Amino acid sequence: MAVKLHGLAMSSCTALVLSCIHEKGVDFELVPVNLSAGQHKQPPFLAKNPFGLIPVLEDGDLTLFESRAISTYIAEKFKETGHDLMRHNNRNEAALVKVWAEVESQNYHPAISPIVYQFLVAPLLGQNPNQEIINTNLEKLSKVLDVYEAKLSTTKYLAGDFYSLADLHHFPSTYYFMKSPWASLVNDRPHVKAWWEDISSRPASVKVAEGMVLGQK
Amino acid sequence: MAVKLHGLAMSSCTALVLSCIHEKGVDFELVPVNLSAGQHKQPPFLAKNPFGLIPVLEDGDLTLFESRAISTYIAEKFKETGHDLMRHNNRNEAALVKVWAEVESQNYHPAISPIVYQFLVAPLLGQNPNQEIINTNLEKLSKVLDVYEAKLSTTKYLAGDFYSLADLHHFPSTYYFMKSPWASLVNDRPHVKAWWEDISSRPASVKVAEGMVLGQK
Ligand SMILES: N[C@@H](CCC(=O)N[C@@H](CS)C(=O)NCC(=O)O)C(=O)O
Ligand SMILES: N[C@@H](CCC(=O)N[C@@H](CS)C(=O)NCC(=O)O)C(=O)O
Repeated sequence: MAVKLHGLAMSSCTALVLSCIHEKGVDFELVPVNLSAGQHKQPPFLAKNPFGLIPVLEDGDLTLFESRAISTYIAEKFKETGHDLMRHNNRNEAALVKVWAEVESQNYHPAISPIVYQFLVAPLLGQNPNQEIINTNLEKLSKVLDVYEAKLSTTKYLAGDFYSLADLHHFPSTYYFMKSPWASLVNDRPHVKAWWEDISSRPASVKVAEGMVLGQK
Repeated sequence: MAVKLHGLAMSSCTALVLSCIHEKGVDFELVPVNLSAGQHKQPPFLAKNPFGLIPVLEDGDLTLFESRAISTYIAEKFKETGHDLMRHNNRNEAALVKVWAEVESQNYHPAISPIVYQFLVAPLLGQNPNQEIINTNLEKLSKVLDVYEAKLSTTKYLAGDFYSLADLHHFPSTYYFMKSPWASLVNDRPHVKAWWEDISSRPASVKVAEGMVLGQK
């Protein structure tokens, strides 16, 4: 039975889950949520995710939210299918995947997502980008990328010489970031640049990027 | 062989890992890091964690950082010992543990930790607490706790009727928060209050709290 993903292909949180679904070749149905009509703040959707946010996954009678929890669930349930995103046969490598997935969640995402929001989303909502927020976070992101540059000069991917969920979680936000005037933060760091070119050209990433057109529903 | 935990018992990130270690009854050695001398920003420590933050775990020749990745590693490696924090025999329950652990990481922690920092840490550093930051985050935290109150009126713990890593990850920051003038945010919500009393009175939590005296080394 296909899993049901409630969300929008253009939303970076939904795209994170879609990247995992495509890597794993899992059958799915994307159920659109009308954010502008506030569908995600109405009782039927709140019963699935009390925080009123996309994405939500339904697999039979199991309902999950939080994009990173959903991708981990898919990567584990379908561990024998598609690319092994969790290194499930090697406890130490699996632990390093978790470390670098946490780095994305705790360090990378909090810096990059306000930049993407100010640069791409605020204008769509008729707001002026807040340059102070952008600058503060560009500084934070630079420091994180310095660590990535050093790490990626010793291993091909973040957790080791294998593509994993830790890399995958970086795809959607970085995809939007690379459309900003500050893409040089990635391009000026040779190992980060090579890593980005590698992960963004994977067939699953290319497929997900097709739906990442902001402003569309 | 005992695992080595580099950190400080009073730091909430270290305390998160310690809570898991005590639940699991794992042999460990706590190796203090002299933060005021900047030991965590020196090459020997940076070789263990390039972000220069505590805690770091060493288990044989495996080195891990990021507190939530470390606790997940311990909960999985020692899954047969002590309390089962991951529901490792039930895929659906295990997925719900991940969902609510992500809620802590994405929603609860970003709201509660700036409050704890402003109220407890800033004064130790000779700074005045920033009341605007406190107010913004009290408002965010209230909304998160409203969702918790509703959830905890249907299940005893966040992920279901079982204590899990998702609950455990809330312990250290909430422990400090409960010393603040805003503890009523927890105490005024009967199900959140009962949950907090339950998780904070577990022997592992009581043990960890003994070391949580801010300002000590
Ligand atoms: N931590 C959540 C965040 C979910 C989230 O922020 N979703 C956004 C789209 S990327 C959303 O639903 N926005 C609608 C709104 O804020 O009203 C996750 O990773 O799933
Ligand atoms: N996301 C990291 C955060 C680690 C962190 O912020 N550690 C603090 C102590 S709780 C630290 O090392 N502070 C020293 C500093 O910032 O210089 C984790 O969960 O391990």
